[in-house]
Amino acid sequence: MPPHPLTLDGSAVLHQVFRVRWPQWNALAGDRRAEIARQASVGFEAFESDPGGGSAVFSQLGHKGDLLMVHFRADFEELNRVERAISSLALSDFLDQTTSYVSVVELGLYDSTVKLYEELFAEGIRPDDPRWTERVKARTEEQATAMEPRLRPTVPPHKYLCFYPMDKKRGESVNWYTLPITERRRMMREHGMIGRRFAGRVKQIISGSIGFDDWEWGVDLFADDPLVFKQLIYEMRFDEASALYALFGPFYIGIRLPGAQLAKWLDASGATSSES
Amino acid sequence: MPPHPLTLDGSAVLHQVFRVRWPQWNALAGDRRAEIARQASVGFEAFESDPGGGSAVFSQLGHKGDLLMVHFRADFEELNRVERAISSLALSDFLDQTTSYVSVVELGLYDSTVKLYEELFAEGIRPDDPRWTERVKARTEEQATAMEPRLRPTVPPHKYLCFYPMDKKRGESVNWYTLPITERRRMMREHGMIGRRFAGRVKQIISGSIGFDDWEWGVDLFADDPLVFKQLIYEMRFDEASALYALFGPFYIGIRLPGAQLAKWLDASGATSSES
Amino acid sequence: MPPHPLTLDGSAVLHQVFRVRWPQWNALAGDRRAEIARQASVGFEAFESDPGGGSAVFSQLGHKGDLLMVHFRADFEELNRVERAISSLALSDFLDQTTSYVSVVELGLYDSTVKLYEELFAEGIRPDDPRWTERVKARTEEQATAMEPRLRPTVPPHKYLCFYPMDKKRGESVNWYTLPITERRRMMREHGMIGRRFAGRVKQIISGSIGFDDWEWGVDLFADDPLVFKQLIYEMRFDEASALYALFGPFYIGIRLPGAQLAKWLDASGATSSES
Amino acid sequence: MPPHPLTLDGSAVLHQVFRVRWPQWNALAGDRRAEIARQASVGFEAFESDPGGGSAVFSQLGHKGDLLMVHFRADFEELNRVERAISSLALSDFLDQTTSYVSVVELGLYDSTVKLYEELFAEGIRPDDPRWTERVKARTEEQATAMEPRLRPTVPPHKYLCFYPMDKKRGESVNWYTLPITERRRMMREHGMIGRRFAGRVKQIISGSIGFDDWEWGVDLFADDPLVFKQLIYEMRFDEASALYALFGPFYIGIRLPGAQLAKWLDASGATSSES
Amino acid sequence: MPPHPLTLDGSAVLHQVFRVRWPQWNALAGDRRAEIARQASVGFEAFESDPGGGSAVFSQLGHKGDLLMVHFRADFEELNRVERAISSLALSDFLDQTTSYVSVVELGLYDSTVKLYEELFAEGIRPDDPRWTERVKARTEEQATAMEPRLRPTVPPHKYLCFYPMDKKRGESVNWYTLPITERRRMMREHGMIGRRFAGRVKQIISGSIGFDDWEWGVDLFADDPLVFKQLIYEMRFDEASALYALFGPFYIGIRLPGAQLAKWLDASGATSSES
Repeated sequence: MPPHPLTLDGSAVLHQVFRVRWPQWNALAGDRRAEIARQASVGFEAFESDPGGGSAVFSQLGHKGDLLMVHFRADFEELNRVERAISSLALSDFLDQTTSYVSVVELGLYDSTVKLYEELFAEGIRPDDPRWTERVKARTEEQATAMEPRLRPTVPPHKYLCFYPMDKKRGESVNWYTLPITERRRMMREHGMIGRRFAGRVKQIISGSIGFDDWEWGVDLFADDPLVFKQLIYEMRFDEASALYALFGPFYIGIRLPGAQLAKWLDASGATSSES
Repeated sequence: MPPHPLTLDGSAVLHQVFRVRWPQWNALAGDRRAEIARQASVGFEAFESDPGGGSAVFSQLGHKGDLLMVHFRADFEELNRVERAISSLALSDFLDQTTSYVSVVELGLYDSTVKLYEELFAEGIRPDDPRWTERVKARTEEQATAMEPRLRPTVPPHKYLCFYPMDKKRGESVNWYTLPITERRRMMREHGMIGRRFAGRVKQIISGSIGFDDWEWGVDLFADDPLVFKQLIYEMRFDEASALYALFGPFYIGIRLPGAQLAKWLDASGATSSES
Repeated sequence: MPPHPLTLDGSAVLHQVFRVRWPQWNALAGDRRAEIARQASVGFEAFESDPGGGSAVFSQLGHKGDLLMVHFRADFEELNRVERAISSLALSDFLDQTTSYVSVVELGLYDSTVKLYEELFAEGIRPDDPRWTERVKARTEEQATAMEPRLRPTVPPHKYLCFYPMDKKRGESVNWYTLPITERRRMMREHGMIGRRFAGRVKQIISGSIGFDDWEWGVDLFADDPLVFKQLIYEMRFDEASALYALFGPFYIGIRLPGAQLAKWLDASGATSSES
Repeated sequence: MPPHPLTLDGSAVLHQVFRVRWPQWNALAGDRRAEIARQASVGFEAFESDPGGGSAVFSQLGHKGDLLMVHFRADFEELNRVERAISSLALSDFLDQTTSYVSVVELGLYDSTVKLYEELFAEGIRPDDPRWTERVKARTEEQATAMEPRLRPTVPPHKYLCFYPMDKKRGESVNWYTLPITERRRMMREHGMIGRRFAGRVKQIISGSIGFDDWEWGVDLFADDPLVFKQLIYEMRFDEASALYALFGPFYIGIRLPGAQLAKWLDASGATSSES
Repeated sequence: MPPHPLTLDGSAVLHQVFRVRWPQWNALAGDRRAEIARQASVGFEAFESDPGGGSAVFSQLGHKGDLLMVHFRADFEELNRVERAISSLALSDFLDQTTSYVSVVELGLYDSTVKLYEELFAEGIRPDDPRWTERVKARTEEQATAMEPRLRPTVPPHKYLCFYPMDKKRGESVNWYTLPITERRRMMREHGMIGRRFAGRVKQIISGSIGFDDWEWGVDLFADDPLVFKQLIYEMRFDEASALYALFGPFYIGIRLPGAQLAKWLDASGATSSES
């Protein structure tokens, strides 16, 4: 049985982290600052309602950045357009981009894949048979149609975002990629069952980044209570797929900042300082 | 028996490390410097007495930073407000934030968890039984009430702070997360017994950061004699939980700097330089 | 049988990643900006058609850089000339080079090597026999002539580039370099068969960097649909050569930006900002 | 037998590495430069003769820094005062601190510890007996008195300094902290015997940094012939304690620069440049 | 038999990597630039012919730096003088030193060491016998005299330089430092035999950096055809000493830039830019 699970690829996703150059920003004259903030605010509101899935801005906790942005778009060209649009804002002269993440919404089809492979084997169809390729293609398209809304999501409306990239381990003795696909399916199922118990409290979007960025997947968790992130991830850390095979990158957390409030957010801090 | 211990989450915690831009600061006119220092001093005094738990500033040893701040607050929104308040101080134009740590005061309940799980099993209640969830919830709330003061601490008054983040190891053969919960409970008990022998000399506050920052836990040790940090941590390094399973991040150490003395601290160094 | 496969070395390759200093660029007067952009555009068009294989520029996704350049040249002196030419452009005052990669187009001859070694052994010729060296030299030259077009490629015309460096693992128990050459040949064959199934959709160019840069190989994938990168690399991650032995460096992805459009690309972002 | 050896803690130690901002420094008017250099020279001479153990400055080899300073002081507050004093020097506007190390002179008592533990066990006294604690305390104090001069050293006068931090390995199968104390004592003895053969040629001061900085120990070697550092450390690398259990941090090497010559050192380089 | 091989130490070696601040350099008036370049050119010509072994400058490939310098000198004080001399050049205001490497030319005497140890054992002389030390000293001095030219080399004249630092692995199961000296001698011999087959095409100089810098050895390869670096290092990667035990640092590669041409090299790029 071939080792790789079928996956469905959806919207292109870009995460961006920016630090504000507060000293330079605070040094601006009040009306110039207001003008730049207004332009940025209008720009971000347009991003939020982009038909490709929209964007969201978060006021980030900690030194990694001040603004954490997530953009869902139709494809990479649209993401590149977002990047250019941001660097053309006057505000961008006061931002340092400290990191980013490029990925594509991904649905892993472990269950359907194993089921399909088993059907094909039962029918005597092998991977080198042209019918194999056809049937795989047909099933993938069928699934993509059925899952279109999950492949092309809009940014969920929750107040908090937790984002982190991750890999599956390829250690010298513990190696996800050398396990039989049925073993991996079993572990992914158990892993998914924990997530399901948090349904309603956390909205999770997985994106794949193999070939696009330095980790294999990006995980976005959206929730109204940030403590739920900790409970969910801590509980998951004990399941087999995570305990043995997960490698975690840096974690980013932010509080939703609607574009309409961006000008106020930017001004609040400037105002106080200029009065001192 | 489920593998994950119950935990109680309390106050939101933010650690911040800042370097002072001494050349820029020293170059300011004396009265402007005094004015900015006074504003900062007033601001930090307000932080110190914040009803959510308060803040403390430390004059840090070594090149990692000059000022190490710890903030205990009701929740992440309050922490974000602290961040914005600091970047709106005129002093922030002379600070570079080099690192930070976002976490939540955490009490791990290994003992109660195993006891509760054993009771439930004895009563024939299994994890998929709705009564399991109810009983877990009830016990957690009961504990949270009993431990409220430890979950919502104020910053201890000691002169020295030692802060470091840490993980439990998930190596290829040595993996904390694949051990039975009873094994982990045993090791955490022994680990705790060393800490208890240092009671009165060191005040320890553990915060959890899974989902919030890049390590799993943050450890704050407060003491009046900094050598006790070394003795405690060295002795602990030989216990099973640490020797086999602990991974340590960077260590930060500072000497308490009351907000009321911040202006003097900032001025002392400027004054000498401006006279040269 | 000697352990090392014969390889053929072709064109010298340089990858460069640049960030644009947008604030400085945007601050320029419009006509000065246009003049510098025009000069750069002309310069890059000359690079594109360089007889040594040409160059290509890509608008990069993510914070790692804004411009990703690939240069194929006759040799290292030509690459050095490209570097000097770029730093002599007025545009270079507005670029920060964040990373680069130095390598040489490489064709690994696992199949021919093992075949030749077997022939030589069958003829009773051993590695310390002068005839061995002669025959190896002759076969290598014969292959180099036959594969000249692949050794001296021009930059493929596709819209997307995915670049990443990689190593073969030398772990304590999993070590590519201690495997018999016949084992490595078998795995490289299987690895190559996956690539072949993507022929027509992805153009792959491997370059070797042992002795020149920090990883052992650079991989360039060119395609018109960037999702194919993900599918190809994900599928390969499960083959034995990758699953067990590959170590991957950072991934870079960009959208083709013809030199002729560079001025427009640079201007578009400046224009918007200057209007604000 | 308890696993941790008794240790004696002595003077507080701070290592600092600074790069000189040569362009800014060289751009100063000659008399201003002379004035700043003179102030710094006077300051460092005072540091050198500090009664807490003194300081020493070294002209560092390599890009890690230009000035490498070592300060021995009574306690952390004194170290913090040194830091503040340096940042208040006018010279500090022309220095970038690139790294530092915070530690405490430490004498490890493997021999005495095992001997004492054996005595106590022979007398039927166990770790949970209050007499155990008393006897440990008494022995530690007795040793501290006897070793006072080694615990409170002055900076040795040798021309060269080699400094590096190190850890004892806590690997998955090779773990210093899980060995019996008697095994560790045996290895530390053998390790010490190599050092003894270099007595007279190298002066070694070990400081402990658990809880204070990112490695467990700092090692300072002082010698008049720097090649001896290489011979000593290379030979030690083969002993069991080092070969199996040592992890080494970065290495720093410098040539003694007496405070009295600092002004000349600073001026020499400025002078040439200003004449160009 | 003692585990450590005897080594001979020769000239002190410093590698330096500099980036040119092109924007600042290009912004200079033409005659000022010419004047600074001329001063630097004269300075580097003096370095080249230094009686301690000389220096060489290379135009580096890739973003790690623009200028790669190698200095061979009598001792560390001479190296420190080179550093000070460079920072006193007016050109140094336009250079950023990105890295460096401090080492000492080293000849490892595995063969002679084992031979001597065997002789001594045969004569009944053991390591704790004073005659052992005498005989070791005598043999070392004899060898040092015989190998004086190799210990005090001048920089070879070849066009290309490849430099990289390396360690011998001290893994948990694969550990060079726990092997018997005779095993290591066998592997070093085989390793050396590959090098010998490249004699005439590559000139290799090994320097030791234990106690001086962050890796154990630095390797300098000089050749007129840079592809030979790749062939040599790739072939060596399969020998036992490298495949199992070598850890490689970053690789640096440059094209010889005689001091006499430095002014032209610096001017060429400025000229073009200033015309734009």
